Amino acid sequence: MSVEKRTPIPVSEAIHRVVQQDITMPTRQVKLADSTGYILAEDIVATYEIPRFDKSPYDGYALRAQDTEGASGDNRLEFKVIDHIGAGSVSSKVVGEREAVRIMTGAKVPEGADAIVMLEQTVESEDSFTIRKPFQVGDNIARKGEETQIGDVVLERGQRINPGAIAVLATYGYSEVPVYEKPSVGVIATGSELLNVEDELEEGKIRNSNGPMIASLSQQLGLEVETYQIQQDDLESSIEAVKRAMQQHDIIITTGGVSVGDFDYLPEIYKAIDAEVLFNKIAMRPGSVTTVAVANDQYLFGLSGNPSACFTGFQLYVKPAVNKMMGAQAYYPQVIQATLMEDFGKPNPFTRFIRAEATLDGQQMTVTPAGFNKSGAVVSIAHSNAMIVLPKGTRGFKKGYTVNVILTESHAYEEDLNL
Amino acid sequence: MSVEKRTPIPVSEAIHRVVQQDITMPTRQVKLADSTGYILAEDIVATYEIPRFDKSPYDGYALRAQDTEGASGDNRLEFKVIDHIGAGSVSSKVVGEREAVRIMTGAKVPEGADAIVMLEQTVESEDSFTIRKPFQVGDNIARKGEETQIGDVVLERGQRINPGAIAVLATYGYSEVPVYEKPSVGVIATGSELLNVEDELEEGKIRNSNGPMIASLSQQLGLEVETYQIQQDDLESSIEAVKRAMQQHDIIITTGGVSVGDFDYLPEIYKAIDAEVLFNKIAMRPGSVTTVAVANDQYLFGLSGNPSACFTGFQLYVKPAVNKMMGAQAYYPQVIQATLMEDFGKPNPFTRFIRAEATLDGQQMTVTPAGFNKSGAVVSIAHSNAMIVLPKGTRGFKKGYTVNVILTESHAYEEDLNL
Repeated sequence: MSVEKRTPIPVSEAIHRVVQQDITMPTRQVKLADSTGYILAEDIVATYEIPRFDKSPYDGYALRAQDTEGASGDNRLEFKVIDHIGAGSVSSKVVGEREAVRIMTGAKVPEGADAIVMLEQTVESEDSFTIRKPFQVGDNIARKGEETQIGDVVLERGQRINPGAIAVLATYGYSEVPVYEKPSVGVIATGSELLNVEDELEEGKIRNSNGPMIASLSQQLGLEVETYQIQQDDLESSIEAVKRAMQQHDIIITTGGVSVGDFDYLPEIYKAIDAEVLFNKIAMRPGSVTTVAVANDQYLFGLSGNPSACFTGFQLYVKPAVNKMMGAQAYYPQVIQATLMEDFGKPNPFTRFIRAEATLDGQQMTVTPAGFNKSGAVVSIAHSNAMIVLPKGTRGFKKGYTVNVILTESHAYEEDLNL
Repeated sequence: MSVEKRTPIPVSEAIHRVVQQDITMPTRQVKLADSTGYILAEDIVATYEIPRFDKSPYDGYALRAQDTEGASGDNRLEFKVIDHIGAGSVSSKVVGEREAVRIMTGAKVPEGADAIVMLEQTVESEDSFTIRKPFQVGDNIARKGEETQIGDVVLERGQRINPGAIAVLATYGYSEVPVYEKPSVGVIATGSELLNVEDELEEGKIRNSNGPMIASLSQQLGLEVETYQIQQDDLESSIEAVKRAMQQHDIIITTGGVSVGDFDYLPEIYKAIDAEVLFNKIAMRPGSVTTVAVANDQYLFGLSGNPSACFTGFQLYVKPAVNKMMGAQAYYPQVIQATLMEDFGKPNPFTRFIRAEATLDGQQMTVTPAGFNKSGAVVSIAHSNAMIVLPKGTRGFKKGYTVNVILTESHAYEEDLNL
C-alpha cells in the first residue's frame, strides 16, 4: 500500500457532510419511565386545558367576591362555612351569599364562588371566619386553560425529553411515548501497540485508553456500546470484524490505525464494505486524519489513535451525527465565547482545538488551556470541560482575548455556594 | 391537627443545612466500563510515566540529530534505513551514523536515535531517504514522562468520572474503579387529587406528573428510582409505606401533601419515624413549604405538590445532597450571570426562582422567563433550561439587567453551526 494523497476540508464542511446524510433511526414507543433522554417522534398536542378546571392554588376559602365589598379592619365581614373539600374532591354545594367552602390547594373551585381567600387572610371560628379586606372576581384562582388551551402543541417533535417534558407527558396520559430509537455503537480500537486494561505492561506497548473513552462518551449520550477486538495485522479478519460489528450496531467507531502510514488498513476495509468516504482529512489539529464513511445507512467513524484527537473527533463529528440520527431538532455543538486566561502563542495553520477548563461562575465566562495539551495527552482530557477553538491562519492569542469555546462536560457544580 | 407555625429560613441557609449532614455512601469497586458518572473514592496516583517511553508522535524516521547537520535543499543528506517498526514493536537495532529506523506513530524511539523526521519531510527511495534540513536533539519526540511523572496525582478523590478520567484509569490498568455508591431514590407522590398516568380523568382530579418528573430528574443524575403509592387519608398505612421505602432506599422524596393545611400528614410521619426536621419553611417562591428531614442517616425530602415548586426544590436541595452523598468535591449548583431579556416587574418578598431559557451561544449570556410561569405551571418546565434567581426584597427587574441564573439542563445543542 502506498501513502494516500488526502485533501483536507474545513471543519464546518466536514460537520455538514456528516449531518447531511439522511440517516434517521426508526421510531417506537417506550415506557414513560424509560423515555428521559430520547427525542420525541411526534408533536404532543393538548387534549384538554391546563388547568383542567378553575382551581385554588392555596389552602383557603372559596366565596363570592361581591360579598366581600366594604370589608376592612374596622368592618370585618363574616362568612359561614358550608363545606370542606380536599384536593381531588368536588363540593356538591353551591356557594351563596356570605357563604364559603373551605378548599385545599389544587381543589376545584365550587359552583357559585369566584374568588379564593387565603387561610392567612382570615380569622377562623368554629363554622365561620372573618376577613378584613375586599376581594376581586378571580382573585387567587388558577383559571381553567390559563396555561394551555386544547390544541396547543405542548411538546414538539425533535425535542429532547427532559424531566419537564416527562411531567407534561404524564399530565396528558402518555404511559408510552413515541420516540426515535437510539443508535447503538460498536467500538473497535486498533493498534498493535495496544494492550487491554487488565494486561500486564510490555515494552513499547500501552494500554488501550481510547476504546474505553469512546464507550464512556457514548454512554454519556445514553447509548448502548459494545467493544470489539480486531487483529490489525490481518486485513481479512479485520474486514470480517467490521462487518460483524455492522450487523449488530448502527454506528461503528474505530480508533487508531488511521494515521497516514504503511500499516493503515482502514481504506481497504472501506473499499471491501463498499463504503462512501465522506472525507478522510480535515484542516484541524489535532485529528486531521479523522475519517467518516457511510455504508448501508450506517456511519463509520475513523477517529485518531491520539487520545486528544480521538476525543475532539467524537465531540465534533460523532455527537452531531448521533443527535441527528435520534431525530433531534438541534444537533450542532453549542459554541460560546469566553475570555482566554493565558497566552497561547502557537501558530494555527489549521483550526486548532485545545482541551480547556471553562469557568462560568462569574460575570464573565473565562477559559484556560487544561495543562499539558499535546494531541497525545490523556490526563488533560480528564481535567477539561471545554475545547477552545482557534481559527486557522491565526497565531498569538493573548490573555484577555475573546475566543470560541465548545463545552464538552454537562455536569457543572461548584465547591462554594454563590447564592 | 392544627395549622403549624413555621419560620422561614433563607435559601442558602437551607442548602447549607442539607449538605452539612454527614451522610456519605459506602465505597465499592465498579467495573471500568460501568464507572462513568460515579465519583472517585480514592486519588489515582501515576505508577509510571506518561509517555512510558520516548515515542514518536508521527510516522517517520528515527535518526541521530548530529547526522543532519548541514542538510539543505542544495545539500540533501541521505540516510540508510536499517529497520522498520510498527507501533508496539521495539527495534533491536541501534541507530548509527547516517542510519535511520522507519517508525510508526506511537512506537518507541530506538536506541541511538534522538530525533524523528516526519515522513513528509523526506524523499524516500528503496532502502534510504534524503532530507533537506537539519534537526535538533529531541525534535518530534514525545519524551518519557513529559505529561506525567511517577507519583503524580492524575485523578483526585471526589472527582466525577468523565470520559477523560476513564482514559486515564484505563491507561493505569484499573479494570475496577474505587467509587462511592450512588444513593437509590424512593419517590412517593401523595395527594387525593392524583390519578396515575394510565388512569381515565375524573372530575376535580389531575394525573400525577410530579412523581414521574422526580424519577426523571433522579435518572438524569444516574440514580436508580422506585415509585410508591400511598393512601394519604390513612396515616397508619402512610407511615408504613414510608418505613418500607426507607428500608429499600437511601433517599425518600415525597411530593404533595406538604402544604400548610388540614390534611397534611407529613409532620406526623416525621414524628413517627423519629426524623430530625432540618427545616419546613424557606423564604423562597415557589416552594416555600419544602421540608427536609433526616432519619437513620437517610434524607427525606418533602417537595411541594406544585410542579414548578417541586422542580425548583429538587434542583436546590436534592441535587447538592445527592452529589455530597456520592462523595463529590463540588456539590453546589453553578450560578452564572446573564442579561435579562424581558421586564420582570413582580415584587419579590422572598427569593424568587423563575423557570427560564438561557442562551449561551453569543458574546453575552442572556436569559428569558419561560412562558407561563406560575408555580403550578408544567409546560414551561419542559421548555426551560435554567432558573433565574431574583433576590428577596427587590422588584422591577428590567430588560438589560444582569441576573443570577442556575442552569438546570445539561444538554445544549444548536440548530445552526456557529463555527
